[in-house]
Amino acid sequence: MTGDIGIWLSTELDEVSAIMSEHLHNKHPEVNTVCGELAAYGGKMLRPSLLLLSWRATSNCVAVPKSVKTAAAVVELIHLATLVHDDVLDEADIRRGLPTINSLRGNEAAVMLGDYLLSSAFHLCSTIKHVELNILLGEVTNTLCSGELVQLSHRDSVDLSLDSYYQIIHDKTASLIAASCEMGSVLGGGDDAVVSVLREFGNSIGTAFQIKDDLLYLLADQIDIGKPAGRDLEKGKLTLPVIMMLAKNPELKHAVHDVISNNDRAALHKLLLAADSIPCARNEINRLVDSAVEGIKSAISNNSSEQLCNLANQLKQEI
Amino acid sequence: MTGDIGIWLSTELDEVSAIMSEHLHNKHPEVNTVCGELAAYGGKMLRPSLLLLSWRATSNCVAVPKSVKTAAAVVELIHLATLVHDDVLDEADIRRGLPTINSLRGNEAAVMLGDYLLSSAFHLCSTIKHVELNILLGEVTNTLCSGELVQLSHRDSVDLSLDSYYQIIHDKTASLIAASCEMGSVLGGGDDAVVSVLREFGNSIGTAFQIKDDLLYLLADQIDIGKPAGRDLEKGKLTLPVIMMLAKNPELKHAVHDVISNNDRAALHKLLLAADSIPCARNEINRLVDSAVEGIKSAISNNSSEQLCNLANQLKQEI
Repeated sequence: MTGDIGIWLSTELDEVSAIMSEHLHNKHPEVNTVCGELAAYGGKMLRPSLLLLSWRATSNCVAVPKSVKTAAAVVELIHLATLVHDDVLDEADIRRGLPTINSLRGNEAAVMLGDYLLSSAFHLCSTIKHVELNILLGEVTNTLCSGELVQLSHRDSVDLSLDSYYQIIHDKTASLIAASCEMGSVLGGGDDAVVSVLREFGNSIGTAFQIKDDLLYLLADQIDIGKPAGRDLEKGKLTLPVIMMLAKNPELKHAVHDVISNNDRAALHKLLLAADSIPCARNEINRLVDSAVEGIKSAISNNSSEQLCNLANQLKQEI
Repeated sequence: MTGDIGIWLSTELDEVSAIMSEHLHNKHPEVNTVCGELAAYGGKMLRPSLLLLSWRATSNCVAVPKSVKTAAAVVELIHLATLVHDDVLDEADIRRGLPTINSLRGNEAAVMLGDYLLSSAFHLCSTIKHVELNILLGEVTNTLCSGELVQLSHRDSVDLSLDSYYQIIHDKTASLIAASCEMGSVLGGGDDAVVSVLREFGNSIGTAFQIKDDLLYLLADQIDIGKPAGRDLEKGKLTLPVIMMLAKNPELKHAVHDVISNNDRAALHKLLLAADSIPCARNEINRLVDSAVEGIKSAISNNSSEQLCNLANQLKQEI
């Protein structure tokens, strides 16, 4: 049964990709050339998958309406825009083992391409002619940007609280994942309670996803993740294991401050190992995934909701 | 009569500014701090003025509906977003004599603030709940971004044709000015013919505006424009006087190439003086303004359309 849904999803995702390509196509070949270099940014289509599955989990229809596939393309375009601008912010040269837009074309083209993706996403969303969806999209993109701005304002600070950290990763990552689930269930005709369950599911797995991403960066010396290790440290971003360690051992603030100033990954690993903080962060991922799965199971039970739970459970693996 | 319209416009623009401030206000003080540093970016509110006057030129109502003031705030927010990102692209430290966001907060915060402004504009536009307006906005922001991308791809090229130059400045500047006139007249209930006249008016004065802006940069050694001279040259952007000169004297391409490579403003001025190209660009501004005014006069005749013509004619002065 899960296999069937897998095939269904993969067929629908192909159509979502086609909508994206068609919509990005521009009358100016110079724009298409830059868009053509987005190869490194094509990922697992997590957000469109969540939107499609959330639609299917709540809808009585069999055929997926164009509006749903379009909305799935919209959330992926927004995600691509954030990746392109993130790479400018992070001065990243490599993503998934391939060169980033800023490394290929310079920061200026990367800033403009990110804007073009953002603009194209809003334009595409408008064509669905569903006013509430446009408002929801505007709210979530405001949240994404404010999350990044708040994170930047805390750069190099060893005083970031656990609450502030969770707020930042909610805003900059989980909000779009939650909105993907919400949009799918709204378009599927889910009632308020079900929409809320799916939004919360998205929030929990989105948070787990960002913690896992941060952990991967931390552990990238040991694992090949297709991007350079230690970028967060270099950019003065505190991640969950570090914040957990400092919450338990505030006397380590000076040491962490020095580690950040010297961009000394080896010293950070030593501190984290001694404080046993990496397993604590792993436990937090598992806790969030379990809570997401429990939430869904208490409200919906069908093939699509099971597939959503499978997707969530994958976050527990591979780290 | 014009005085009355002046007072009317200034009162309405105050309300537009209030809508912008209210909409940008964020629950995170860190975001408000960055937004509070937009002082250098508050200009003459040309785009909201054009939107309000285009509305008034076509509407039978006396009181300006909230939707119109909101749309005026939307186009100004889009404009602000482009300025903030332009300053990142141009590595500009100063705007209107005040420090830019990138100089105050770094490129990362400037990229994110630009995104926040863009996102806020789309969100605000969605609250008007006028689907066609959202589509129009998405189209114009796509055009703005593609204009910048095309311009970037022609950097340092002395082969930019006059047609390509006009296309670029249409896309990156005139399109939003034209859309402001179009939105105002659509909301005012203008018929297709009148909407088209106002859009064309915006296109013509938007093009004249960009040519004038480029001229000001070229002449900034002689005039204090609150920003450093010669940035276009430094960034390898050809402007109208240079393109006109090369169209007449293609044998100067090598000399212009050297001037760009050496960022030699004095040498460029000498070439332009010999070719008499600056007066030609000035004539082009006047021609565009005359055509804009003629277009409007042939279709509409009321206080507001006269005020639009006055605004257009101001572009002829001060240079």
